Amino acid sequence: MQLKVLLVAGTHGNEINGIWLFEQWEKLPLLINTHGIKTYKVIGNPEAKKAGKRYIFNDLNRSFLEESFSEINSQNLEGMRAIQLVQLYGIKGENPCQIALDFHTTTASMGSCLVVYGRRDSDLALAGLIQNKLGLPIYLHESDKKQTGFLVESWPCGLVIEIGPVAQNLLNSRIIYQTKLILENLLEQIKDISNFDHLFPEKLIIHRHIKSIDFPRDDEGNINGFVHPLRQGKDWHPLKKDDDLFCKFNGESIRFDEDEQYIPVFINESSYMEKNIAMSLTKRELWLFEENWKRCLVELVSQK
Amino acid sequence: MQLKVLLVAGTHGNEINGIWLFEQWEKLPLLINTHGIKTYKVIGNPEAKKAGKRYIFNDLNRSFLEESFSEINSQNLEGMRAIQLVQLYGIKGENPCQIALDFHTTTASMGSCLVVYGRRDSDLALAGLIQNKLGLPIYLHESDKKQTGFLVESWPCGLVIEIGPVAQNLLNSRIIYQTKLILENLLEQIKDISNFDHLFPEKLIIHRHIKSIDFPRDDEGNINGFVHPLRQGKDWHPLKKDDDLFCKFNGESIRFDEDEQYIPVFINESSYMEKNIAMSLTKRELWLFEENWKRCLVELVSQK
Repeated sequence: MQLKVLLVAGTHGNEINGIWLFEQWEKLPLLINTHGIKTYKVIGNPEAKKAGKRYIFNDLNRSFLEESFSEINSQNLEGMRAIQLVQLYGIKGENPCQIALDFHTTTASMGSCLVVYGRRDSDLALAGLIQNKLGLPIYLHESDKKQTGFLVESWPCGLVIEIGPVAQNLLNSRIIYQTKLILENLLEQIKDISNFDHLFPEKLIIHRHIKSIDFPRDDEGNINGFVHPLRQGKDWHPLKKDDDLFCKFNGESIRFDEDEQYIPVFINESSYMEKNIAMSLTKRELWLFEENWKRCLVELVSQK
Repeated sequence: MQLKVLLVAGTHGNEINGIWLFEQWEKLPLLINTHGIKTYKVIGNPEAKKAGKRYIFNDLNRSFLEESFSEINSQNLEGMRAIQLVQLYGIKGENPCQIALDFHTTTASMGSCLVVYGRRDSDLALAGLIQNKLGLPIYLHESDKKQTGFLVESWPCGLVIEIGPVAQNLLNSRIIYQTKLILENLLEQIKDISNFDHLFPEKLIIHRHIKSIDFPRDDEGNINGFVHPLRQGKDWHPLKKDDDLFCKFNGESIRFDEDEQYIPVFINESSYMEKNIAMSLTKRELWLFEENWKRCLVELVSQK
């Protein structure tokens, strides 16, 4: 089986920089160096793109779930789209892809980073290769029962690439160039895996998801405080006891009151407000690169 | 007639920082120092706010037009809202307000600034007072036949306050504090006018609108270039011949090719893409403060 990679932009319809890059690429086929790898590029949620919104009914990137696959009705546009993408490009689909790369943007000051969902061997191997090449931080999203059904989980190997800060529905040159750079480097690394000649790193720096925290709220559940100016834009910077976290208009500063030190990520991502997430807290850990991660990834891309 | 000031936030439903400030103020009446002035605060487009969008059918801040007032139909939500606001708070309305202050945010790096529409004496006088106090730049929007029907034009005196950069639908502490600061200073200055004891400045720095320029487009009208990295975020910085303006993916940099030097504003404001505006070009000018501006404003706020 030929190695095929699914490239997705616009899984959230208002994250347009990746969509725009794909459109330019369509017109100028030599724009992106695919390193000879067969790719399929798709707009994740084209209806949401047209509407200028993150989604129409449900977040597509939470819709890759058995439950949503079974609900066939007109209010389940995103569930239907999830089924369609798996039928078209899933490993048992019409154009089977082994790897899915899903390009996102965020209003948080995350810079460029990789998001890995759970501890799948081949995901960690691929993330490690890119971290080794470009130095990108890796956010390991796990142990979060409220957040499930991510697109990349429906493929044997898949990463989310998050780039920010940028507003929704806004083209930004820095974000476009970063998307292009990471896309080309991912394809280059994937090509080298299939040639068996790749040097894998010995260690991986992981930002492991511990929990998410909500905005402060009043008795009726309304948000009554915002991210503290000293915390805004400080993604990846340590958060420790007594650090300013939120502030309220009555002058009160809400400080972080745990003894543990964390690394916050996705601070003030606009679309997470509806999910009651002001930021997520992670632990920064150094992991030894495991031999079976590499074996899994090499096997995946070498299946004939 | 008592002096009354209309305060509007959320004229665009996805510009939420002002809306949020008003909501907090509602709960904590002492939050904003109104300097004893009677104010009415309203959410401009509450339906768009609910939908998380700039507007539902039409831009409310282009709907204060005779034409849109006459179209009474269900697709004219914003036209109907414009009529309603004028009926409720217009100078001949139920709660007549002499001055309207309209709080906006932008994804462009505009900092905090004032927008004046046309050369109305009392607008220039009030803008001058605030520029004198806080040093804010003034953008004089005029001679733009494609852009008309702004809210503040339906009041005898009115300013738009623009603060950025911030994404839509995102609370940001800096933006909230700036909004509060400017609101309180405006009310303080307005109170002093009515006491006749105010010192008006001798000069005004105006950024006079000359024209807007579109993104580069292909033969089919699709955008095929984006704001150059050297231009992004450079609002208020001079643009002169041969400066980089846009870039295309074929490697081409599109340079500014006019001999005139301009000051660009609203560079890459997300919602102007649909209006075919990549940025607007202004001339920076020093104007002498005219005696009749002051007289007009003093008369307006002193009407009994």
